[in-house]
Amino acid sequence: MTAISRLETATLSTAVESVAVEYYQIPLAEVLSDAKHGDHYHFELVVCRIRTADGFEGCGYTYTGGKGGRAIYSLINDELKPWLQGKDAARIEHLWEGMQYHLHYVGRGGLLSFAISAVDIALWDIKCKRLNLPLWKVAGGASNKTPCYAGGIDLNFSEAKLLDNIQGYLNNGFKAVKIKVGKEDYREDVARVKAVRELIGPDLEFMVDANYSLTVEKAIRFGRAIDQYNIGWFEEPTIPDDYQGYARIAEAINIPLAMGENLHTIYEFNYAAQQAKVGFLQPDASNIGGVTGWLKAAQLAYAYNLPVCSHGMQELHVSLMSSQANCGMMEVHSFPIDQYTKRPLVIDDNGLAVAPDTPGTGVEFDLQLLRPHQKML
Amino acid sequence: MTAISRLETATLSTAVESVAVEYYQIPLAEVLSDAKHGDHYHFELVVCRIRTADGFEGCGYTYTGGKGGRAIYSLINDELKPWLQGKDAARIEHLWEGMQYHLHYVGRGGLLSFAISAVDIALWDIKCKRLNLPLWKVAGGASNKTPCYAGGIDLNFSEAKLLDNIQGYLNNGFKAVKIKVGKEDYREDVARVKAVRELIGPDLEFMVDANYSLTVEKAIRFGRAIDQYNIGWFEEPTIPDDYQGYARIAEAINIPLAMGENLHTIYEFNYAAQQAKVGFLQPDASNIGGVTGWLKAAQLAYAYNLPVCSHGMQELHVSLMSSQANCGMMEVHSFPIDQYTKRPLVIDDNGLAVAPDTPGTGVEFDLQLLRPHQKML
Repeated sequence: MTAISRLETATLSTAVESVAVEYYQIPLAEVLSDAKHGDHYHFELVVCRIRTADGFEGCGYTYTGGKGGRAIYSLINDELKPWLQGKDAARIEHLWEGMQYHLHYVGRGGLLSFAISAVDIALWDIKCKRLNLPLWKVAGGASNKTPCYAGGIDLNFSEAKLLDNIQGYLNNGFKAVKIKVGKEDYREDVARVKAVRELIGPDLEFMVDANYSLTVEKAIRFGRAIDQYNIGWFEEPTIPDDYQGYARIAEAINIPLAMGENLHTIYEFNYAAQQAKVGFLQPDASNIGGVTGWLKAAQLAYAYNLPVCSHGMQELHVSLMSSQANCGMMEVHSFPIDQYTKRPLVIDDNGLAVAPDTPGTGVEFDLQLLRPHQKML
Repeated sequence: MTAISRLETATLSTAVESVAVEYYQIPLAEVLSDAKHGDHYHFELVVCRIRTADGFEGCGYTYTGGKGGRAIYSLINDELKPWLQGKDAARIEHLWEGMQYHLHYVGRGGLLSFAISAVDIALWDIKCKRLNLPLWKVAGGASNKTPCYAGGIDLNFSEAKLLDNIQGYLNNGFKAVKIKVGKEDYREDVARVKAVRELIGPDLEFMVDANYSLTVEKAIRFGRAIDQYNIGWFEEPTIPDDYQGYARIAEAINIPLAMGENLHTIYEFNYAAQQAKVGFLQPDASNIGGVTGWLKAAQLAYAYNLPVCSHGMQELHVSLMSSQANCGMMEVHSFPIDQYTKRPLVIDDNGLAVAPDTPGTGVEFDLQLLRPHQKML
């Protein structure tokens, strides 16, 4: 196919012919804990495969920390699948808006955003395959690489194990790390931060994440106590609903704040940018409405002069993050979704994550690895 | 049982022994339409029954406009049911907070609030039965009556049918009515408003509801065009996410604004009260987290010097609305859930809705009427 005929193909209408949904529970190698979600034993993966009349197949997905995946499955299988049937897969923005309002009464963010994400990512996979281009180029093309950091879910690790884990990240080439905080006695958190900074030395980036477990006052006390350790950001100090509480923290400490994994509409991101005085926005394409939602959040961040970062699903975000001019740092999350794909995350010698060049999102699941974890619903 | 021993019983711990969930699709007598949700052919009812170790049974429920009910069923059956098992049913606030954070990653409002609502209402039913008191007394006891209005879902009705429908409300003793607006040509809405005001005369309360279908500018134009018809409130002129857009409308027109049916966390209500310049808050116990969530919203409204109103499920809201000092007007919704209960809504000669005096929420479904509509999942 010549370049011109490919482009023509990609802009032609093509009907959604079939939508299939799969549900997986994937065990973690060890129990991972944070301050608010408790212990994680497995994560859930909900995969959505869409076929179009012109013979393309797209693969989308979302994930959870272990709960709610069956309800997401129901939203896609019982509600979105019949609605999508026969609609034009080339009109993604139209379908995205349509899904939001088709289920608006039970939606406006929350769980619905996870379901829309899986569908939207499948549609983008198709779009990129029809264009015969990789996602990083279709989504913007600023670069094919993004700075990244290793994000531990390590609150239950002893200090010795925490340091071992961080050393493992460094051995694997990471130039930036993040740890969980939110111990009952905050002085223990301070000691862990000190120990990690001493291990990694003064030059590497180092962030902390409280998973919204603190009151505003406790967050301020903690933020002041770790001021001397050169912290890149303080993530989710308090509940994501309290934008003005974030602003009070931001005004009282020297460390910039970050949030986004729990914001599920572009309007929530707008309020965060406008009222929470954060330094970084961290949308997650698996719960902000897929590639479409993530790009809206990235563009909003740009308009507010903020770097966009990401939460989770590094195998997909590597392409999205790379594509944006205001690219911040991508999280390499402790849920190893990328280990179940045919191209686990690639990190170059400079510690940058490299986006795949294959047409589509570049995320193709290895069914031999996944299948043992599928649950029939 | 003496009064004192009853009180002792009601404060003692009692374990959740079983949780059962039922799913119904209940057809509407005719197709009902509004400006954003489209046509309604049926509504969904998800019922949650909880039994406690001391022999009480509570019945809770939520509803939708026809979509998403199976995902709500999954959240209760797959996630909340195992979590609730054995927990102390007497500690409702503890369980409510626990459910929010147990499923927070896939929650923060949205669909999760519907699931929590059904569970919470069942727990309140048990609480009231253990106290041997009706809900209106347990929830506050301000009164056992509330002003109410008939809310039509009538955007697809011709003007003649619209007026017939309104006349039917008047014949049934209603002293206040609401119609849908949001026609493609707003002048048609203005004509319908004029016709209804002429039918009902100058003294009855009359509200309009755009189901968030308008832009801010169109809402202002319409609000000014109907100014002369003495409109009680203009409900959901634009998307519920745009609190500041509501404020722009409120400042530009003379009719007070109302919203709430699409706000699913107490924080969203707080932003609405703080930033949207609304005149009325309208929580719905079926999607704000049950009785617990509804009362939090009612108390928030009180603190902001706003009347609390309600959306939908009049058979339950009659008790909640009556119980509050800042009681505004209860909607009598066009989804006739109360017709499937053993006590359809009672309206007295003054047009006030009367709360039931039976111990519990006073909402007991008539299984003979419901059963034909049950779908096994």
